[in-house]
Amino acid sequence: MTKGEEVSNKQVVFRDYVHGPLKETDMVLSTSTTHLKVPQDSKAILVKNIYLACDPRTKILLIEPGLAIRGFGVAKVLDSDHPDFKEGDFVWGITTWEEYSLIKTPESLFKIHNTDVPLSYYTGILGMPGLSAYAGFFELCSPKKGEYVFVSSAYGGVGQIVGQFAKLMGCYVVGSAGSDDKVNLLKNKFRFDEAFNYKKEHDLAAALKRYFPDGIDIYFENVGGKMLDAVLLNMRHHGRIAACGMISQFNLEQHEGVHNLFNLISKRIRMEGFVVHDHYHLYPKFLDFTLQYIKEGKLVYTEDIIEGLEKGPSALIRLFAGQTVGKPVIRVSHE
Amino acid sequence: MTKGEEVSNKQVVFRDYVHGPLKETDMVLSTSTTHLKVPQDSKAILVKNIYLACDPRTKILLIEPGLAIRGFGVAKVLDSDHPDFKEGDFVWGITTWEEYSLIKTPESLFKIHNTDVPLSYYTGILGMPGLSAYAGFFELCSPKKGEYVFVSSAYGGVGQIVGQFAKLMGCYVVGSAGSDDKVNLLKNKFRFDEAFNYKKEHDLAAALKRYFPDGIDIYFENVGGKMLDAVLLNMRHHGRIAACGMISQFNLEQHEGVHNLFNLISKRIRMEGFVVHDHYHLYPKFLDFTLQYIKEGKLVYTEDIIEGLEKGPSALIRLFAGQTVGKPVIRVSHE
Repeated sequence: MTKGEEVSNKQVVFRDYVHGPLKETDMVLSTSTTHLKVPQDSKAILVKNIYLACDPRTKILLIEPGLAIRGFGVAKVLDSDHPDFKEGDFVWGITTWEEYSLIKTPESLFKIHNTDVPLSYYTGILGMPGLSAYAGFFELCSPKKGEYVFVSSAYGGVGQIVGQFAKLMGCYVVGSAGSDDKVNLLKNKFRFDEAFNYKKEHDLAAALKRYFPDGIDIYFENVGGKMLDAVLLNMRHHGRIAACGMISQFNLEQHEGVHNLFNLISKRIRMEGFVVHDHYHLYPKFLDFTLQYIKEGKLVYTEDIIEGLEKGPSALIRLFAGQTVGKPVIRVSHE
Repeated sequence: MTKGEEVSNKQVVFRDYVHGPLKETDMVLSTSTTHLKVPQDSKAILVKNIYLACDPRTKILLIEPGLAIRGFGVAKVLDSDHPDFKEGDFVWGITTWEEYSLIKTPESLFKIHNTDVPLSYYTGILGMPGLSAYAGFFELCSPKKGEYVFVSSAYGGVGQIVGQFAKLMGCYVVGSAGSDDKVNLLKNKFRFDEAFNYKKEHDLAAALKRYFPDGIDIYFENVGGKMLDAVLLNMRHHGRIAACGMISQFNLEQHEGVHNLFNLISKRIRMEGFVVHDHYHLYPKFLDFTLQYIKEGKLVYTEDIIEGLEKGPSALIRLFAGQTVGKPVIRVSHE
């Protein structure tokens, strides 16, 4: 393609507002055309999308039926009317599930300077999930060497990074996941001290007691509901809970009740919710820290690269159903 | 009495472990004898109890059936084998529901130096409830001028002080209470901007929306359960919740579920439980601050002095039933 050319532009669109569990048929592939040129004086940029993250938050980003899905991705700048971006730059941030996107507020994007790691990493360990893990674990939980850390949904994009950060800090780390395969990978590939399949535990509080006979100092909360209740019973005094997501609650019309909050008082627990956007200022510090450990082989990361935008909807459904093993990333185009 | 004398010593004793709501018949008045002398080399002190606090936490302090109730009180030292205490000193801290107490670890007590305020205040505004209000509000909630503050169980010993601290800070303060009398006193005597009777509200979330159309920055949490759920829906971004007690949950075998914790994440809320013991180091700072405002008439405090240890059990029951208006204080003896 050349600048200014009119090209066809495949998109993944939500048909309507989604009620109940997301189904593949809630999404549809449509094709429009796009002019590969940024309007003059628009301060916008035009990008070719390369990778799109399959993310549990995608559903939340649904804004209006008939519009393409929005989510995190990696893209290459094809044309720019913004002084900070030029043709050929790589960027990551919120983009659209389509081949070409006009981004009207490129200030919200991060420019990619380090291209000696796979670019797809910027949808994961070097992108929003990595920064979420970093901000939630280091900023909210103030970990100390030797502390006991529990991560729920530990195989998720954020959880597996939190567990590895905790090991780098000298903590004892246990993760929960929803399949034996994931449990094995957490222990053998991601170096968690222990991991368990929560679906096989009748009594989550007893399971946690088994892995944490002396209690939990830090809980990286990704699920909510019954697991949070079980954790509250097993927290130590002055424990910290960083609440990053409550994925088990996403598809419930009425959220499960949490019954053991009384423990917050008796155990002087601090529980804090956070949204990664508030921590963007940490990105340069996070990037230096994480890149170094990746290059030294001390941080492991796996992805499941899915070729083609048209495979996006089914990948998203598998993610929500807990059927993905590697972090799913959709490759829309080659660099 | 004289030092060394053997005297009769009335006590209030729990008959057995308490299951379900506390009843007056769970407690019994008994009489033993006490020698008014501290054993040599014991580092103990012997005190005459003057005031005993009627406190929602009293039930928690039940340690062993057949022993007297323990709780906060003000006492006068009659004999001391401890270098820091001498005959005639006034102290406050954990004592026993009886006329005379041998206190084996007097290091846990606070000496009273300021006696130009009623001594009974050291069971309340200058004691544990006051310090709870101070630590929870100032240390955990970091209030700023103009912020919106909600206090549940606002007429309680801690709540009415939190509300006044918030007004002194230039915040907008609303309290909830369980009777119209209390609501009137909160507004007219304790200078809350608004107050409401939660028992008359079918929809607590709607009630809060009425009083906080722009949302709540700080919630001083005294009750838990449904009120917490309603508050979570009405919190502002970056709100702070200090969890001091969940009195509505004390007598429930199965704690009510809290369903709206998802708001912690989307609104980046920090919720922290605390126990006043962890904040004893703040006592001198708190005392200076609070004494000054009391003397200037800018902090109001009311008590309901109940004469006689034998009235203690019925006062405690009325407190748990929400039937007390002033803070009940039992006068065991005169100074």
